[in-house]
Amino acid sequence: MTDFSKTRSMFDIPDGMTYLNGNSLGPMPKAAPEAMDRFLKDEWRTEIIKGWNTKGWFMQTNTLGDRVGKLIGAPAGTTVVGDTLSIKVFQAVSAGLALVPDRRVILSDNGNFPTDLYMVEGLMKLKDDGYELRIPDPEMVLDSITEEVAVIMVTEVDYRTGRKHDMKAIIEKAHKCGAVVVWDLAHSAGAIPVDVGGLDTDFAVGCTYKYFNGGPGAPAFIHVAQRLMDVVEPSLSGWYAHEAPFAFDTDFRPMPGAIERMRIGTPSIASFAILEVALDIWDHVDMNDLQERSIELSNLFIKEVEARCEGVTYAGIRDPQARGSHVSFRFEHGYACMQALIAEKVIGDFRAPNVMRFGITPLFIGEADIHKAVDTMEAIIKNETWREDRFQARGLVT
Amino acid sequence: MTDFSKTRSMFDIPDGMTYLNGNSLGPMPKAAPEAMDRFLKDEWRTEIIKGWNTKGWFMQTNTLGDRVGKLIGAPAGTTVVGDTLSIKVFQAVSAGLALVPDRRVILSDNGNFPTDLYMVEGLMKLKDDGYELRIPDPEMVLDSITEEVAVIMVTEVDYRTGRKHDMKAIIEKAHKCGAVVVWDLAHSAGAIPVDVGGLDTDFAVGCTYKYFNGGPGAPAFIHVAQRLMDVVEPSLSGWYAHEAPFAFDTDFRPMPGAIERMRIGTPSIASFAILEVALDIWDHVDMNDLQERSIELSNLFIKEVEARCEGVTYAGIRDPQARGSHVSFRFEHGYACMQALIAEKVIGDFRAPNVMRFGITPLFIGEADIHKAVDTMEAIIKNETWREDRFQARGLVT
Repeated sequence: MTDFSKTRSMFDIPDGMTYLNGNSLGPMPKAAPEAMDRFLKDEWRTEIIKGWNTKGWFMQTNTLGDRVGKLIGAPAGTTVVGDTLSIKVFQAVSAGLALVPDRRVILSDNGNFPTDLYMVEGLMKLKDDGYELRIPDPEMVLDSITEEVAVIMVTEVDYRTGRKHDMKAIIEKAHKCGAVVVWDLAHSAGAIPVDVGGLDTDFAVGCTYKYFNGGPGAPAFIHVAQRLMDVVEPSLSGWYAHEAPFAFDTDFRPMPGAIERMRIGTPSIASFAILEVALDIWDHVDMNDLQERSIELSNLFIKEVEARCEGVTYAGIRDPQARGSHVSFRFEHGYACMQALIAEKVIGDFRAPNVMRFGITPLFIGEADIHKAVDTMEAIIKNETWREDRFQARGLVT
Repeated sequence: MTDFSKTRSMFDIPDGMTYLNGNSLGPMPKAAPEAMDRFLKDEWRTEIIKGWNTKGWFMQTNTLGDRVGKLIGAPAGTTVVGDTLSIKVFQAVSAGLALVPDRRVILSDNGNFPTDLYMVEGLMKLKDDGYELRIPDPEMVLDSITEEVAVIMVTEVDYRTGRKHDMKAIIEKAHKCGAVVVWDLAHSAGAIPVDVGGLDTDFAVGCTYKYFNGGPGAPAFIHVAQRLMDVVEPSLSGWYAHEAPFAFDTDFRPMPGAIERMRIGTPSIASFAILEVALDIWDHVDMNDLQERSIELSNLFIKEVEARCEGVTYAGIRDPQARGSHVSFRFEHGYACMQALIAEKVIGDFRAPNVMRFGITPLFIGEADIHKAVDTMEAIIKNETWREDRFQARGLVT
């Protein structure tokens, strides 16, 4: 049984803050400053260039990749970390298209996180070869899988509503139709149980700055099915993916049969130092316990808000098995209300046009946080605090 | 006049170490641990998600980009940091090809750093539209610029020999022929005076972990000429490049007329915390002073090694104006000799097949270091210390 009071004690969250935004950027693990200090003083300072050998920097893409892989059901040796999620999406989709060279349709949905769509747009322009991106409503994805489709790229959990795709059904139908699946785990990894190996997806990508708490801009990850490892073509073919990276040959030969081929250039080793201790926390967590706890807390939150906050309506999915681990509410004055909540140290975020979004992250969130959040929201709505000028002005990020 | 004893005092280099590898990975600035601690505790810990607004994280790509830009002669607003150099090469070359859509030749040279060539190889495969990569000998690049050429991608300073391309001549001829230039500054930025603005290159890319001392895997940078800012097409079109990144529209519209369009996804903010203080050191440096000092030290090193180390021959360029800031020597037993030097705390590196390479970085290297390096090398050669078994085994990185 996962001890969530133990995991809670492993984070350093400011006193009095109710942090319901771990789905956007996780809070700092207590171990991060010491780990970073160790990296700076005992690795970079003392070893400098030698650290690539003596401190294992060169293979951290893989050692950390395996640790992430374990949390998403990926066999060892099929996941690497590095780069940004946008880049990993590009890698996966471009590699997917090369596997199905005679088709020209990429299927996603209009609820997908925009950067995934943007990256595909850029890829299609580059290829300039009649590709088409279809983005039906999320509910229509399964029905839209046909033998025309080369690659299906969907984010399992909708970043606004928390609505979950049925990945098992999508993958099965895709494979029946000869299509390749790129599964974006941005809002799934560390949020709900995921089994990329068991469901035999072709590719999976995600980030580590949300539920994995790796810090702002922490590395992304990519998983490739072992069965594809010999045939998958890296289109972003950097020296880190080369069969002999230190031979300095002028022609590219991808590392045969290994996930190294999805590495690109030299990754930030400082960001790995944080990720390492952020992942340590997960050694104490069972994903099924996590989901159970997330559902309890989410249901409590939804029930209380609906009962006590007038004008605020639940924007998500009722069936807890069909959603991720954040809950969203619509409110006409959602932006200002979220600003007022933040002023009271209840931190969620806002997604246009009117969605207030809260991450339910049992690693560091309990009932008391939920009650605090609802009490605060209720008072803001009753007193119309959100009308204050200071809550109307827009910042860059909410 | 630059005070190099002052800059030397701003680095934390282990006692007794002669570090002649700042061209590969710079040593740690003394200010790095405190800056990182501040980022972790006063930014990430206390602000968490709000840091994107309150701590300026979202625009650090640009604020740090401008500081890098200043050191390579780029006007403000034309340089951003982020991603890896491999990715930035891909961005620049793909954007360059789009500017000259009717041509099919990419010109580089066979001395270019392999990852640049690999990334172009991947790009050509993606485009699959008759592109050809020509890699003549470096000396033949200028003569190979014809009206067939779409993009010229060269690394100014050869990573092995230090040989410098005549960028002025290349850019002038390229523009006369209607070609676009991508100038890789990996071994130039922070090594020699660079004036990307004055020479009116189309693109420039580079990294910050070498002479800029940003730490292992520190962010890369890209510069785009202001005259291209409205027409340049980002092919890696992530949300960070969008005109309205927080509108979450499903279609990509690049930030109009601004370098933001060359940003991609969410960058590592921890790596920016280090880069910031690493760049502070450059506030005290005049690039002409730096080059003068580099030439003095390099000439001393070359002269002494040639006089005292039998069998070791200088592999670089005699004219100091025609080279970068590292010096290379060929020695039949170069690998083992470098291992023996490292065991004596004289740190350089090795590049196949037989090149011993030393970075001359006046920010933290002086005459005493050069004498120590030559004395040590002389003793190793005289005593044939390099024959010892322990110096024969190969590691991943040297």
